[in-house]
Amino acid sequence: MADNRTDKRLTAKKDLVADWNHLMRVFLRPEDDASRQTLIKYMEQMLFGLHEFLKKHVGITEAKSLKELSEHFMITEISEDPEKKLADVITCLIKEIAPHAVNVASPYFVGHMTSAIPFFMVHLKTIVAALNQNVVKVETSKVVSVIEKQVIAKIHSMIYKRGRPFYEKHVQDTDTTLGVFTEGGTTANLTALWVARNARFAPKSGFSGIESEGVPSAFAAYNVDRCVILASRLAHYSLRKAAGILGLGCNSVIPIETDADYRIDIDALKETIKQIHAENSRTCILAIVGIAGATETGTVDPLAQIAEICNTHNIHFHVDAAWGGPTLFSKEYRHLLDGIQHSDSVTIDGHKQFYMPMTCGMLYVRDPKILDVIAYHSNYVNRRGSVDLGIRSLSGSREANSLILDCALKIMGAKGYALLINHGIETARAFAEEIEKREDFQLVTPPVLNILTYRFFPARTRERIAHADMDEKERINSALNVINRDLQRLQREAGNSFVSRTTLRQNAFAPCEIVVLRTVIMNPMTDIGILREILDEQEQIVKNHLSENLPE
Amino acid sequence: MADNRTDKRLTAKKDLVADWNHLMRVFLRPEDDASRQTLIKYMEQMLFGLHEFLKKHVGITEAKSLKELSEHFMITEISEDPEKKLADVITCLIKEIAPHAVNVASPYFVGHMTSAIPFFMVHLKTIVAALNQNVVKVETSKVVSVIEKQVIAKIHSMIYKRGRPFYEKHVQDTDTTLGVFTEGGTTANLTALWVARNARFAPKSGFSGIESEGVPSAFAAYNVDRCVILASRLAHYSLRKAAGILGLGCNSVIPIETDADYRIDIDALKETIKQIHAENSRTCILAIVGIAGATETGTVDPLAQIAEICNTHNIHFHVDAAWGGPTLFSKEYRHLLDGIQHSDSVTIDGHKQFYMPMTCGMLYVRDPKILDVIAYHSNYVNRRGSVDLGIRSLSGSREANSLILDCALKIMGAKGYALLINHGIETARAFAEEIEKREDFQLVTPPVLNILTYRFFPARTRERIAHADMDEKERINSALNVINRDLQRLQREAGNSFVSRTTLRQNAFAPCEIVVLRTVIMNPMTDIGILREILDEQEQIVKNHLSENLPE
Repeated sequence: MADNRTDKRLTAKKDLVADWNHLMRVFLRPEDDASRQTLIKYMEQMLFGLHEFLKKHVGITEAKSLKELSEHFMITEISEDPEKKLADVITCLIKEIAPHAVNVASPYFVGHMTSAIPFFMVHLKTIVAALNQNVVKVETSKVVSVIEKQVIAKIHSMIYKRGRPFYEKHVQDTDTTLGVFTEGGTTANLTALWVARNARFAPKSGFSGIESEGVPSAFAAYNVDRCVILASRLAHYSLRKAAGILGLGCNSVIPIETDADYRIDIDALKETIKQIHAENSRTCILAIVGIAGATETGTVDPLAQIAEICNTHNIHFHVDAAWGGPTLFSKEYRHLLDGIQHSDSVTIDGHKQFYMPMTCGMLYVRDPKILDVIAYHSNYVNRRGSVDLGIRSLSGSREANSLILDCALKIMGAKGYALLINHGIETARAFAEEIEKREDFQLVTPPVLNILTYRFFPARTRERIAHADMDEKERINSALNVINRDLQRLQREAGNSFVSRTTLRQNAFAPCEIVVLRTVIMNPMTDIGILREILDEQEQIVKNHLSENLPE
Repeated sequence: MADNRTDKRLTAKKDLVADWNHLMRVFLRPEDDASRQTLIKYMEQMLFGLHEFLKKHVGITEAKSLKELSEHFMITEISEDPEKKLADVITCLIKEIAPHAVNVASPYFVGHMTSAIPFFMVHLKTIVAALNQNVVKVETSKVVSVIEKQVIAKIHSMIYKRGRPFYEKHVQDTDTTLGVFTEGGTTANLTALWVARNARFAPKSGFSGIESEGVPSAFAAYNVDRCVILASRLAHYSLRKAAGILGLGCNSVIPIETDADYRIDIDALKETIKQIHAENSRTCILAIVGIAGATETGTVDPLAQIAEICNTHNIHFHVDAAWGGPTLFSKEYRHLLDGIQHSDSVTIDGHKQFYMPMTCGMLYVRDPKILDVIAYHSNYVNRRGSVDLGIRSLSGSREANSLILDCALKIMGAKGYALLINHGIETARAFAEEIEKREDFQLVTPPVLNILTYRFFPARTRERIAHADMDEKERINSALNVINRDLQRLQREAGNSFVSRTTLRQNAFAPCEIVVLRTVIMNPMTDIGILREILDEQEQIVKNHLSENLPE
């Protein structure tokens, strides 16, 4: 293992001195052929050393448990002298670390929203690191800030389709902003609600705005007692976190029931709005969030209907399309997101279905001036009127991930991304059919996009539950929950494949919470054959390890 | 230029089809030698193609102005078909984009906190991208989460030195957290104040906490009207942004005057606290922020004295050491940060003086339980009791930058980093002496760490101002401000070297705001010879272009 105590032996200690000459060497760009070849050799070792590993198992736990693993990483002193040379660090990463990481690139890894990425993404990330531009300001990024504005306009036009004159005006306009890169979906959602909050409690006579004066003063100035956000109960937890951070309280995110298709129940939404307005005129509905690809079920809320409601009541309409956004590439399936063009803001993650490396989020806004409500300036940077992208942004310093997206769009084309989207959705549908064919499994949430949930639920138990009373139903479901939890764990620990699990609170099948297995089909190498193998393995696991726990 | 319209000619269009076979090829790991060599060739081209460019000019503006540049980036439609092959994208990045980016690696680029980084950092970033782990949860990171906990403990022990038993207990404890990686310093500062806010307005009988219920309810529950944060007027603008986001209002960050050495004035701080307590018992002082390396001047607040004040009044003590944190590596200079070990939280940026690639921030906390106040859980991830690093974190999904820091510490050793720190501070001191030797320049803020500010201010004008009345002083200073602003711009536009500029509000030299030139010495290749050249160039620029504007 990669323990400092043993690894030191790897290296001839005499080379490991920290002096000025050694230091200069790591900063100097190698000029002679020999040094260049060494550098390239390292890069080759990394890329192909990892390839070997990544071809193999999923490796979530392998032989070593996390507890055992962690015992090798206990030293907390920073060594005074260097411990390792780059060559040894790379060897250690490949031989000792990678085998205990998770092979998210495996086509058998279908449990989370992380998968194989095209190899050129690694090249692009490398160039971004080598250029080391900081897009907070034009003085440390120049053309890269300009490219970022362009790529933002490209994605904006895919979402909002506001027409050529609109984009010609705004693409390079330094006074307007069509969107902003963020660390990830969580901070994109936070930025969206931050913008909605500041726009709603804007400066007015005698009040300099919520950003300056804080929530209590804003509520007083606007005669408001409470400020709520409405979203389906399947909304991502980052919305609650955002409301908590923004000083509105995470309890102010009110979960709305879902319908039989796991979409926000429009009647329940309308009823909630009506109740809020009837009960207390001092409660303000800040935003309604529509989900385009729920994390747990992949379902899409009826965005057009939510847009209409928001329009009627003048409420900020945010769409969390962190997952589903790139569905817009697909001619066949983009209709699933219809209504997104009427939103005020949209979250999309680059590291999800744009297949970019970790981490990249984005927020898009329909109104090119709305991001002004979060603008900050300072003396040495982000001066008024400058191109500095840090002016309207949660982040300060920030790497140029926009360059990766820009290049990826050119290499893939919309059609390339569409192929990936279509493959995911169609493979998920085939998988759903397969699940329904097998008598020991129950499809719980059919795929709308490329995510579905199911559970182990043998046919004879299903028959039994059909005739059971409430207590009996609950008892059987509890037993099933235990089995499915164990099943997921045992499969994960075996290390051949990985599905995740979650708990659905509201569903047509049971009066109580049910534990389900969740699969996300985004790796183009994942085909129906692999998914059948995963089900086969699950049947075997139940047969070999869990059959005694089956409910009578 | 990198215009889509012209670049298309580069490529044989027939190759650019998006079909399933082409798509598979970008996901498949190349097995045959020929494909592997192609991949390596790309990587070589990127690394050394960039080297050539990066050796050259600083290139902030070069011949092309930003406005002209932006005219080449106006197209906002995403092409249906692929536009370019990877080879062409790389060529374009090297030949068309990089020359219009900023060469932050040049030793003549001394204007911002971005510089050359050791070449191995690019290798490490590449491996992080290739592994594509997501450290929000152990199911997508496994050993990498364990390594992150270890490296956090290492830096924590450098700051807080809490002794071996403490670290043995906490390094791999899944119930405690010594720190958290963030996107950058801005989100680290935001996290710090978020934690302070939630700890101050904790749940109590009849109140479920500020995170759940929001700021107005919290103020009511705790009998508070206003909640302020005290920091020197040189504090980073991200603190105001954080207070704004957190619902406290950015106006609640109260700027405290600085002393003659540009450190927070302790008497003024005490006086402010006294006034707040006297005026209104319903104003709560949430936090005092000490700066360890002010962005504009590099100055360090008297941390030990602030710690004492915070201790007396039971106020959260946050240290913004985004810049200066790694000074702790240096035996010679770590005393400058004395008192940091008594803080409640510390911000440090990885992409600053740890010389990591953009972007990496960190927050450290003395109390291993305090981050519990920002914990979020969900059904499918971040379950209670798990190792999932996303539980106590502003971010959701997140790349494994901790792996880069861990490797860098091993390659550099504390001594390697200390050499860089010492070089920066000592070169800045030599530069200060050089400035004082030249009769046309005035040293405005001497270097405490490795940042200083100065301005063009000819000796004869200095003599004049000494005998001038207030109005005359203001007039002369205004003229100097114009000259220094123009000087910085002209030097930047010439593209040989780059210093930044800022405006200092409070200083010993003038009754009004003064424009100063600012240099940050972090590149080990920047030596006193280069800094002399920069001053020579500035003298020439004034002589050739600005001499007419000199105040009489």
